[in-house]
Amino acid sequence: MITRLLAMPSVRVERIVSHGQVSPPGFWYDQDEGEWVLVLAGSAVLEVEGEAVAIPMGPGDCIDIPPRRRHRIAWTDPDQPTVWLAVFYAV
Amino acid sequence: MITRLLAMPSVRVERIVSHGQVSPPGFWYDQDEGEWVLVLAGSAVLEVEGEAVAIPMGPGDCIDIPPRRRHRIAWTDPDQPTVWLAVFYAV
Repeated sequence: MITRLLAMPSVRVERIVSHGQVSPPGFWYDQDEGEWVLVLAGSAVLEVEGEAVAIPMGPGDCIDIPPRRRHRIAWTDPDQPTVWLAVFYAV
Repeated sequence: MITRLLAMPSVRVERIVSHGQVSPPGFWYDQDEGEWVLVLAGSAVLEVEGEAVAIPMGPGDCIDIPPRRRHRIAWTDPDQPTVWLAVFYAV
Protein backbone atom coordinates (compact mmCIF):
# COMPACT_ATOMS: atom_id res chain seq x y z
CA MET A 1 0.00 0.00 0.00
CA ILE A 2 1.36 3.37 -1.01
CA THR A 3 0.52 6.63 0.75
CA ARG A 4 1.80 9.78 -0.87
CA LEU A 5 3.01 12.15 1.84
CA LEU A 6 4.51 14.91 -0.29
CA ALA A 7 4.29 15.70 -3.99
CA MET A 8 6.43 18.54 -5.31
CA PRO A 9 8.01 19.06 -8.73
CA SER A 10 11.47 18.13 -7.45
CA VAL A 11 10.63 15.54 -4.81
CA ARG A 12 8.00 13.01 -3.81
CA VAL A 13 7.73 11.23 -0.46
CA GLU A 14 5.80 7.98 -0.14
CA ARG A 15 5.07 5.58 2.69
CA ILE A 16 5.01 2.04 1.34
CA VAL A 17 3.83 -0.97 3.33
CA SER A 18 4.75 -4.48 2.18
CA HIS A 19 3.24 -7.65 3.62
CA GLY A 20 5.55 -10.31 2.25
CA GLN A 21 5.32 -9.01 -1.31
CA VAL A 22 8.34 -9.38 -3.56
CA SER A 23 9.13 -8.27 -7.08
CA PRO A 24 8.14 -10.90 -9.67
CA PRO A 25 11.04 -13.10 -10.85
CA GLY A 26 13.06 -11.26 -13.50
CA PHE A 27 11.31 -7.94 -12.78
CA TRP A 28 13.51 -4.93 -12.10
CA TYR A 29 12.55 -1.39 -11.20
CA ASP A 30 14.26 0.98 -13.65
CA GLN A 31 13.46 4.57 -12.77
CA ASP A 32 14.13 8.04 -14.17
CA GLU A 33 14.26 9.43 -10.66
CA GLY A 34 16.67 8.85 -7.84
CA GLU A 35 15.17 7.01 -4.88
CA TRP A 36 16.36 7.25 -1.32
CA VAL A 37 14.62 4.68 0.82
CA LEU A 38 14.52 4.07 4.56
CA VAL A 39 13.08 1.04 6.35
CA LEU A 40 10.95 2.20 9.29
CA ALA A 41 9.73 -1.24 10.41
CA GLY A 42 9.93 -4.88 9.36
CA SER A 43 12.67 -6.30 7.20
CA ALA A 44 13.44 -6.83 3.55
CA VAL A 45 16.11 -7.92 1.11
CA LEU A 46 16.96 -5.68 -1.81
CA GLU A 47 18.78 -6.71 -4.97
CA VAL A 48 20.64 -3.99 -6.83
CA GLU A 49 22.09 -4.65 -10.25
CA GLY A 50 25.86 -4.70 -10.13
CA GLU A 51 25.98 -5.61 -6.44
CA ALA A 52 27.39 -9.10 -5.91
CA VAL A 53 25.20 -9.83 -2.91
CA ALA A 54 21.65 -8.97 -1.92
CA ILE A 55 21.22 -6.28 0.71
CA PRO A 56 19.31 -7.12 3.91
CA MET A 57 17.53 -4.10 5.37
CA GLY A 58 15.89 -3.52 8.74
CA PRO A 59 14.61 -0.56 10.75
CA GLY A 60 16.86 2.48 10.36
CA ASP A 61 18.64 1.16 7.28
CA CYS A 62 18.62 3.42 4.26
CA ILE A 63 20.02 3.29 0.75
CA ASP A 64 20.23 5.65 -2.18
CA ILE A 65 19.38 4.19 -5.57
CA PRO A 66 20.49 6.43 -8.45
CA PRO A 67 18.33 6.85 -11.57
CA ARG A 68 18.51 3.87 -13.95
CA ARG A 69 20.12 1.64 -11.30
CA ARG A 70 17.98 -1.44 -11.70
CA HIS A 71 16.77 -2.99 -8.46
CA ARG A 72 14.19 -5.37 -7.10
CA ILE A 73 12.68 -6.45 -3.81
CA ALA A 74 13.84 -10.04 -3.30
CA TRP A 75 12.07 -10.58 0.03
CA THR A 76 9.95 -8.88 2.64
CA ASP A 77 9.01 -10.37 5.98
CA PRO A 78 5.75 -12.33 5.59
CA ASP A 79 5.08 -12.23 9.35
CA GLN A 80 4.99 -8.47 9.89
CA PRO A 81 4.46 -5.34 7.82
CA THR A 82 7.56 -3.80 6.30
CA VAL A 83 7.20 -0.03 6.25
CA TRP A 84 9.34 2.00 3.85
CA LEU A 85 9.76 5.71 3.54
CA ALA A 86 10.77 6.49 -0.04
CA VAL A 87 12.01 9.85 -1.27
CA PHE A 88 11.97 10.09 -5.08
CA TYR A 89 13.92 13.01 -6.46
CA ALA A 90 14.67 14.60 -9.78
CA VAL A 91 18.30 14.45 -10.92
CA MET B 1 22.72 16.43 16.36
CA ILE B 2 22.35 16.43 12.60
CA THR B 3 23.29 13.50 10.37
CA ARG B 4 23.14 14.11 6.66
CA LEU B 5 21.71 11.03 4.98
CA LEU B 6 21.40 12.26 1.40
CA ALA B 7 22.78 15.32 -0.37
CA MET B 8 21.65 15.93 -3.95
CA PRO B 9 21.21 19.18 -5.88
CA SER B 10 17.42 19.00 -5.59
CA VAL B 11 16.99 17.34 -2.20
CA ARG B 12 18.72 16.82 1.13
CA VAL B 13 17.72 14.35 3.83
CA GLU B 14 18.82 14.85 7.42
CA ARG B 15 18.28 12.99 10.67
CA ILE B 16 18.03 15.46 13.52
CA VAL B 17 18.03 14.49 17.20
CA SER B 18 16.78 16.97 19.82
CA HIS B 19 17.22 16.50 23.56
CA GLY B 20 14.90 19.13 24.95
CA GLN B 21 16.35 21.88 22.76
CA VAL B 22 14.03 24.65 21.59
CA SER B 23 14.48 27.64 19.30
CA PRO B 24 15.60 30.74 21.22
CA PRO B 25 12.78 33.17 22.09
CA GLY B 26 11.96 35.30 19.06
CA PHE B 27 14.05 33.14 16.73
CA TRP B 28 12.35 31.87 13.56
CA TYR B 29 13.69 29.60 10.85
CA ASP B 30 13.20 31.32 7.49
CA GLN B 31 14.41 29.09 4.69
CA ASP B 32 14.84 29.27 0.92
CA GLU B 33 14.01 25.58 0.66
CA GLY B 34 10.86 23.68 1.36
CA GLU B 35 11.10 21.32 4.34
CA TRP B 36 9.05 18.21 4.86
CA VAL B 37 9.62 16.84 8.33
CA LEU B 38 8.57 13.62 10.03
CA VAL B 39 8.86 12.79 13.73
CA LEU B 40 10.29 9.28 14.15
CA ALA B 41 10.47 9.25 17.94
CA GLY B 42 9.87 11.54 20.91
CA SER B 43 7.61 14.56 20.81
CA ALA B 44 7.77 18.24 20.00
CA VAL B 45 5.71 21.37 19.53
CA LEU B 46 6.14 23.41 16.38
CA GLU B 47 5.09 27.01 15.88
CA VAL B 48 4.38 28.09 12.33
CA GLU B 49 3.82 31.75 11.50
CA GLY B 50 0.23 32.39 10.57
CA GLU B 51 -1.07 29.36 12.46
CA ALA B 52 -3.20 30.38 15.43
CA VAL B 53 -2.11 27.47 17.59
CA ALA B 54 1.13 25.58 18.07
CA ILE B 55 1.34 22.12 16.52
CA PRO B 56 2.10 19.14 18.77
CA MET B 57 3.95 16.38 16.93
CA GLY B 58 4.67 12.78 17.85
CA PRO B 59 5.92 9.64 16.10
CA GLY B 60 4.48 9.34 12.60
CA ASP B 61 3.38 12.97 12.40
CA CYS B 62 4.65 14.92 9.42
CA ILE B 63 4.28 18.45 8.12
CA ASP B 64 5.33 20.32 5.01
CA ILE B 65 6.79 23.79 5.57
CA PRO B 66 6.95 25.84 2.36
CA PRO B 67 9.93 28.12 1.63
CA ARG B 68 9.84 31.38 3.60
CA ARG B 69 7.16 30.09 5.99
CA ARG B 70 8.72 31.12 9.28
CA HIS B 71 8.66 28.48 11.98
CA ARG B 72 10.27 27.59 15.27
CA ILE B 73 10.57 24.69 17.67
CA ALA B 74 8.66 25.71 20.78
CA TRP B 75 9.30 22.52 22.75
CA THR B 76 10.93 19.12 22.56
CA ASP B 77 10.61 16.42 25.17
CA PRO B 78 13.42 16.84 27.73
CA ASP B 79 13.04 13.24 28.94
CA GLN B 80 13.68 11.39 25.71
CA PRO B 81 15.36 12.06 22.35
CA THR B 82 13.14 13.51 19.65
CA VAL B 83 14.22 12.13 16.29
CA TRP B 84 13.25 14.02 13.13
CA LEU B 85 13.65 13.06 9.52
CA ALA B 86 13.81 16.24 7.48
CA VAL B 87 13.64 16.41 3.69
CA PHE B 88 14.76 19.80 2.35
CA TYR B 89 13.84 20.39 -1.27
CA ALA B 90 14.36 23.02 -3.93
CA VAL B 91 11.22 24.79 -5.12
